[in-house]
Amino acid sequence: MKRYRNGEVWDFEHENPLSRDGSDVILGLDGGTTSTVCICMAMPAASRDGVPDPLPVLARAVAGCSNHNSVGEIAARETLEQVMADALSKSGSNRAAVGAVCLAVSGVNHPTDQQRILDWLKDMFPSHVKLFVQNDAVAALASGTLGRLHGCVLIAGTGTIAYGFTEDGREARAAGAGPVLGDWGSGYGIASQALTAVVRAHDGRGPQTMLTHSILRRLSLPSPDELIGWTYADPSWARIAALVPVVVSCAEAGDQVANKILQDSVKELAASVKAVVQKLSLSGEDGRGRFPLVMVGGVLEANKGWDIGKEVVNCILKDYPGAHPIRPKVEPAIGAALLAWNFYLGESENHFDNI
Amino acid sequence: MKRYRNGEVWDFEHENPLSRDGSDVILGLDGGTTSTVCICMAMPAASRDGVPDPLPVLARAVAGCSNHNSVGEIAARETLEQVMADALSKSGSNRAAVGAVCLAVSGVNHPTDQQRILDWLKDMFPSHVKLFVQNDAVAALASGTLGRLHGCVLIAGTGTIAYGFTEDGREARAAGAGPVLGDWGSGYGIASQALTAVVRAHDGRGPQTMLTHSILRRLSLPSPDELIGWTYADPSWARIAALVPVVVSCAEAGDQVANKILQDSVKELAASVKAVVQKLSLSGEDGRGRFPLVMVGGVLEANKGWDIGKEVVNCILKDYPGAHPIRPKVEPAIGAALLAWNFYLGESENHFDNI
Repeated sequence: MKRYRNGEVWDFEHENPLSRDGSDVILGLDGGTTSTVCICMAMPAASRDGVPDPLPVLARAVAGCSNHNSVGEIAARETLEQVMADALSKSGSNRAAVGAVCLAVSGVNHPTDQQRILDWLKDMFPSHVKLFVQNDAVAALASGTLGRLHGCVLIAGTGTIAYGFTEDGREARAAGAGPVLGDWGSGYGIASQALTAVVRAHDGRGPQTMLTHSILRRLSLPSPDELIGWTYADPSWARIAALVPVVVSCAEAGDQVANKILQDSVKELAASVKAVVQKLSLSGEDGRGRFPLVMVGGVLEANKGWDIGKEVVNCILKDYPGAHPIRPKVEPAIGAALLAWNFYLGESENHFDNI
Repeated sequence: MKRYRNGEVWDFEHENPLSRDGSDVILGLDGGTTSTVCICMAMPAASRDGVPDPLPVLARAVAGCSNHNSVGEIAARETLEQVMADALSKSGSNRAAVGAVCLAVSGVNHPTDQQRILDWLKDMFPSHVKLFVQNDAVAALASGTLGRLHGCVLIAGTGTIAYGFTEDGREARAAGAGPVLGDWGSGYGIASQALTAVVRAHDGRGPQTMLTHSILRRLSLPSPDELIGWTYADPSWARIAALVPVVVSCAEAGDQVANKILQDSVKELAASVKAVVQKLSLSGEDGRGRFPLVMVGGVLEANKGWDIGKEVVNCILKDYPGAHPIRPKVEPAIGAALLAWNFYLGESENHFDNI
């Protein structure tokens, strides 16, 4: 076994029994811009008969943001290590028992991001552990398709991204470039536009809006003059995005400014999906082919009145009637665990093929 | 004399001769989002006959960003202290010789911002020194009106703000709320929209644009996939805004996407000025009254082909034909020094009045 770093977070391992063969459990991790979830699942038997039901989930651990673009590399690594240690500790297991790890982390946009996180993992785990790093969108897709990489996922939480795979393994993405690079349909995008609308109403550039009263009340601020200080006091994207429910409430109450912000958001989100579907020809040559459309994230969850997710689906169905909307019943971290399992099986097969 | 902090930046004072009465020089400081300039000027004779020509400038010092919203409070304070020390050192003077200081700093949006910086200054200077803290827009206005607080200034550099004063001392502002809160006409706004256009062209959400090739070449990046990493590697707003000339070049070469970004920027900048003029009734009851319109900042400087500043003025003149555009011949830091002088005279007058 490769020597690996044994920081304090792994101290619990002295208490847990050691495994002999390193194929007892798998780890699936979903690292979003708001929070990070890690699932420890017992390794299902190698099988092509589908996913076991119920899923053999042993433990679940939660931590904060692990997007290195948002919190920096050091904090991101610490969060990832801690949440994996927590999940293993809760499951009564340890790193030697792990067969495969799939980390699906937001902010993984480039092979160098992937390689850096792989290097962190290699430092943490024994060499027999199979390691996979993906964008968090891939886990979200897998949470809707139960591990199958086919179709398009739309995530809209604090950030937003559309990510798609064809059955023969081609992939494409749209958006997911963060707030500076125009992810306007995201929770952050919606909320920053609402804050902007308040500033514009206050300084005379824009129409009056119910958002002023509602946002100031939510933030316990006495005047729009305090918004600049509030906004830049803490650069966390999730803190801004947390205002989305206020925008939805105002739109439901008939505020035109809030309504326009949500309508624009729907157009932006649908445009991301359409770009991916078109690039991959997911709907076939006639544009009517069926493909899974997995919808994930707080912005897309059903609201009583103004349902952003439903509006996005309607907008997509107009162009691609074969889109089959799926709202996953399991969370993306489970998707990541199922991916880890599939990758593990795939690699084992390849291994045997090559002998 | 009040005891004041004597950090290393003030070590030069041992070399410079001490003044007896503390009215030899004044300091004017313009703290922008990109750079900070401090002017040390000999105190002009108390006079209502206007501003001395030539201005008795003794020294000029330059430092980086001093906007606390961008670089944080500690770095902002250090930059302000260093650049004032440099200006005094170069002028062969010292803090005891200073009669008045006017700090005009971007990011001063609230009385608490003003008070915090005043507290820093009180720590640095002897108690006889008269201290004034303003938003940097006020110095920019004064640079165009040579110290008179009347009219409207539009600044568009890395950030943007419109700031106005009536002759009877009422004031109003629009924009200046930073990139999260919708300063779309700013250099940062223009450049981030250009970067967004490149991402959208690359992932299929937007039209192809010349900006892709031009921006990647400027940044020495091989592909749009590298833009996310480049953007979030360094959160400095000025670094993004430095791409404005690339956008202007593309618009001049006929690129429709770049052209649209600049046209939107013109509308945004004009809207800020119009909001201030309307709020203060700067153009009188008939809307035709004359008022100074001071135009400052890199975005508004004349370009050969696409002249953003000229387009903004034209847009404002349509609604307010009495706007009198002024492109200051002196820099905002000189405006701050003239303000320090006027405030000093005003306070001295009040002082004599009260005896």
